[in-house]
Amino acid sequence: MSKAESFNSEHDFELWLRKRAPRQAPGLILGIGDDAALVKPRRGWASVLTSDLSIEGIHFTKALHPPAAVGHRALARSLSDIAAMGAIPRFALISLALSRPATRAWVTRFFAGISGLACRFGVAIAGGDTAAGVKQTVVDVTVIGETPPGEALLRSGARPGDLIFVAGELGLSALGLELLKKRTRPRSAVISRAICAHLYPQPQCVLGRYLARRGLASAAMDISDGLSTDLARLAEASQAGACVESDRIPLPENPTRNRLSADRLLSLAMNGGEDYRLLFTVPAARARSVPQRFRGIRIYQIGEMREARQGLTMIRKGIALPLRPAGYDHFR
Amino acid sequence: MSKAESFNSEHDFELWLRKRAPRQAPGLILGIGDDAALVKPRRGWASVLTSDLSIEGIHFTKALHPPAAVGHRALARSLSDIAAMGAIPRFALISLALSRPATRAWVTRFFAGISGLACRFGVAIAGGDTAAGVKQTVVDVTVIGETPPGEALLRSGARPGDLIFVAGELGLSALGLELLKKRTRPRSAVISRAICAHLYPQPQCVLGRYLARRGLASAAMDISDGLSTDLARLAEASQAGACVESDRIPLPENPTRNRLSADRLLSLAMNGGEDYRLLFTVPAARARSVPQRFRGIRIYQIGEMREARQGLTMIRKGIALPLRPAGYDHFR
Repeated sequence: MSKAESFNSEHDFELWLRKRAPRQAPGLILGIGDDAALVKPRRGWASVLTSDLSIEGIHFTKALHPPAAVGHRALARSLSDIAAMGAIPRFALISLALSRPATRAWVTRFFAGISGLACRFGVAIAGGDTAAGVKQTVVDVTVIGETPPGEALLRSGARPGDLIFVAGELGLSALGLELLKKRTRPRSAVISRAICAHLYPQPQCVLGRYLARRGLASAAMDISDGLSTDLARLAEASQAGACVESDRIPLPENPTRNRLSADRLLSLAMNGGEDYRLLFTVPAARARSVPQRFRGIRIYQIGEMREARQGLTMIRKGIALPLRPAGYDHFR
Repeated sequence: MSKAESFNSEHDFELWLRKRAPRQAPGLILGIGDDAALVKPRRGWASVLTSDLSIEGIHFTKALHPPAAVGHRALARSLSDIAAMGAIPRFALISLALSRPATRAWVTRFFAGISGLACRFGVAIAGGDTAAGVKQTVVDVTVIGETPPGEALLRSGARPGDLIFVAGELGLSALGLELLKKRTRPRSAVISRAICAHLYPQPQCVLGRYLARRGLASAAMDISDGLSTDLARLAEASQAGACVESDRIPLPENPTRNRLSADRLLSLAMNGGEDYRLLFTVPAARARSVPQRFRGIRIYQIGEMREARQGLTMIRKGIALPLRPAGYDHFR
């Protein structure tokens, strides 16, 4: 890497970054450049805290993921957690450990990906940390959000009989990754949509806040590791069981005729991960208040919560099958 | 690594971690286990946010640093930033990307190191993220602290004529690292002290808060990359120059007779880094109010701020020499 392409010093990098980060943003008292950032929480609201790692070779590769997508996805992971709490994201800290061949051009595009998404949600980059010379690039994004304490959506509030919803189709991101790996050209809208869903997932913060403010959802979380794994987490936190109907799972559109079987699409939807769609439950009596569409995204009722002893099941062709978590797991 | 030694799944790891993290702590509404943590900020105070990376091969090695020290140091880095703002640390998020040979025993001791320090400062572990199978272990610690907005200590407040102080001797951590590398046995209190300063640095949060509450310091920061580098940062942020006297720099005690020259000790003190001592400036008229000792740590006046055009200098044997930043830099 030529000197011109890289940063000469941490100071050089910090000055570069400071130019790109907002000096002024609502609630930001002091941004990048001191030992820590200073922000003003909204009076009476709770702070919502989340951190998410994005690691080269695990969450992204330099071959498949353009730098802007790496930045976008790293922030999207945390924003989606804030969405799942029904909170409003406010500030982000970006910790970036750069592998050797990270050039100034790569870092510029990486931060453009972060900034684009941050701007859309009114999130100010308040600080972070940087290091260089690691074997694989690691990003850790912390987002600080806010919510009135009583409105936060938890995983633990679902009760037997509550209906289960997802916002948007599942498996699209995993399908997009498959298409990227096969170097499929975006020659149709269906293919482009899947690739875009993988590279630039859209956190559902506005929907999360809508559900929280209206007190509609009894429980919520975001689907990051696949429905089979994440529904099991929600059910466990709520000390309940759950039953989904395979026919109701919103599958991605088949990108090319006969290329992928319905079984394969269902498997992507159940276990694919990285969809960052909201999974939420609503008491049956309030289910009619759930909109069918929210800002262009269709909302699907896919099943209902059961008693804990009934476990997790999926009804397929009239038969109830046990549903086992088979999504992504770092420790497996 | 045998199965018995490692974690079988993320869920397994999360359950293990949840048992070790506090369920209840002042201000903690919801800790580990949901999409995000919920905390209650103190009314009218500002939140102070900082993240710090600790990377295997850069900030620590498995050969020299016991797992408890890796955890302690990772948290100490962020706590020291909070100390430098004169704030009170409240909550921490721990993001941990584990390299393959990280066993359950390693992780247990790592978290013991974090928890021990967190307890001492009343910091609750509120969340974080985990990943496994990376090439080198990476830790990113985010700490959320609090301060009355008007009391925060910034780097930018130093004025020409303000006196420059450090709390405790400098270079002890770098000396400890040298001794560890040479596999020096801790056969004397002096050696043990240096090794301990390196492995278990003590963030000066109580002193930071003391200076902030009394409005004593015009500027402050923590010395993490070496006095020569960090004083340059403080001076730049304050648009000022600075002059230190080499005779006033508090050097570590020579660990073994004639082993290290005075020049070498001064170099460790100026450029060694990882001391996590507070560097602060006080208007000359208030200098008498600075205690000579604070909780057993001696406070040293090492120089004074100058006009920006006078630059950075060190007076040595009566001669003013230019002082160049030569501390640690990730991008060099």
